[in-house]
Amino acid sequence: MSTLAGYTYDADLDRSPVSTDELALLLDTLAWSDADAAALARAGELLAPQVESVLDVWYGFVGSHPHLVVSFSGEDGRPDGDYLSAVRVRFGQWIRDLCARPWDQRWLDYQNEIARRHVVTMGQTDGVASDQTHIPLRYLIAFVWPITATVRSFLSSGAVDDTELDAMHAAWFKAVTLTVALWAQPYRPDRW
Amino acid sequence: MSTLAGYTYDADLDRSPVSTDELALLLDTLAWSDADAAALARAGELLAPQVESVLDVWYGFVGSHPHLVVSFSGEDGRPDGDYLSAVRVRFGQWIRDLCARPWDQRWLDYQNEIARRHVVTMGQTDGVASDQTHIPLRYLIAFVWPITATVRSFLSSGAVDDTELDAMHAAWFKAVTLTVALWAQPYRPDRW
Repeated sequence: MSTLAGYTYDADLDRSPVSTDELALLLDTLAWSDADAAALARAGELLAPQVESVLDVWYGFVGSHPHLVVSFSGEDGRPDGDYLSAVRVRFGQWIRDLCARPWDQRWLDYQNEIARRHVVTMGQTDGVASDQTHIPLRYLIAFVWPITATVRSFLSSGAVDDTELDAMHAAWFKAVTLTVALWAQPYRPDRW
Repeated sequence: MSTLAGYTYDADLDRSPVSTDELALLLDTLAWSDADAAALARAGELLAPQVESVLDVWYGFVGSHPHLVVSFSGEDGRPDGDYLSAVRVRFGQWIRDLCARPWDQRWLDYQNEIARRHVVTMGQTDGVASDQTHIPLRYLIAFVWPITATVRSFLSSGAVDDTELDAMHAAWFKAVTLTVALWAQPYRPDRW
């Protein structure tokens, strides 16, 4: 874990302001089922060896859009390669954790850590001096689409049939939506 | 329009703080294309005669979840039927507008009007006295999933083939995600 800056999943973490009861209601809102959980676990098995390829697609998407890559600016206002790399490693770990970790208080605590980095502690984990204060909430939400849509082809290569593919993709869609809902918390705690 | 309380699309509206330039960048983030626009228009044609049935599904979903229907409470803390009905008519109009209206400044202005009702002017349009101050941001975001997933069966009945169905459903998914991104603006204007 020493190469994964800011990855303190198994170390002490501040407790998330989100409770497991609130998580349960969010999962109800997504009609989350045991079948979804099984499909997401299977998706995780298929994605694990492809994480770098998935990240290549996502980074290609961000890199080709100036309004997105600006969030990774360094002090000189240009994209900071070290910063991009450090975030990339954590982004890959997010994929693995989402599919394989239990969604318990510890998982919520780590989602809170990630969420705060987008709007409260932006750049601090990686020591980046930048005038970028936050990831805009609108792009965080809009990302539900590319992060959902682009994963389908990575799932299709290992799916037994279209039924399993659809089930894995639906579970992934729900899990991404859940993530964005959780990551929105520090943007407006009293209206979350 | 007289039965559609609070529907002032073609009347004077406050200007949205969201510009058409910001909208264009959001659409880039969703990889929105001319093909999506055509598919959404076609989806709108299929959905228009089924709007009441779509709303039945959505209201059934909200009504069966106490943590969701509580947002429609009246002064006595119980679901207010008149309030539910008034919102329902506007929700139906949102479907039609999303698919058929041009996404111009006027459309942004109306999305702003809707967005403010969820967190700034909650209940005021319908004169509801309630202790519910807002729609929780997390449920607004989570709704991307049910509002996207439940529409597929309504599109499938009129689709020429699976390719057209997939195209319409993808365009709808993007359009719903766009809506939620826009509606999140008044929750945290300076970090939106």
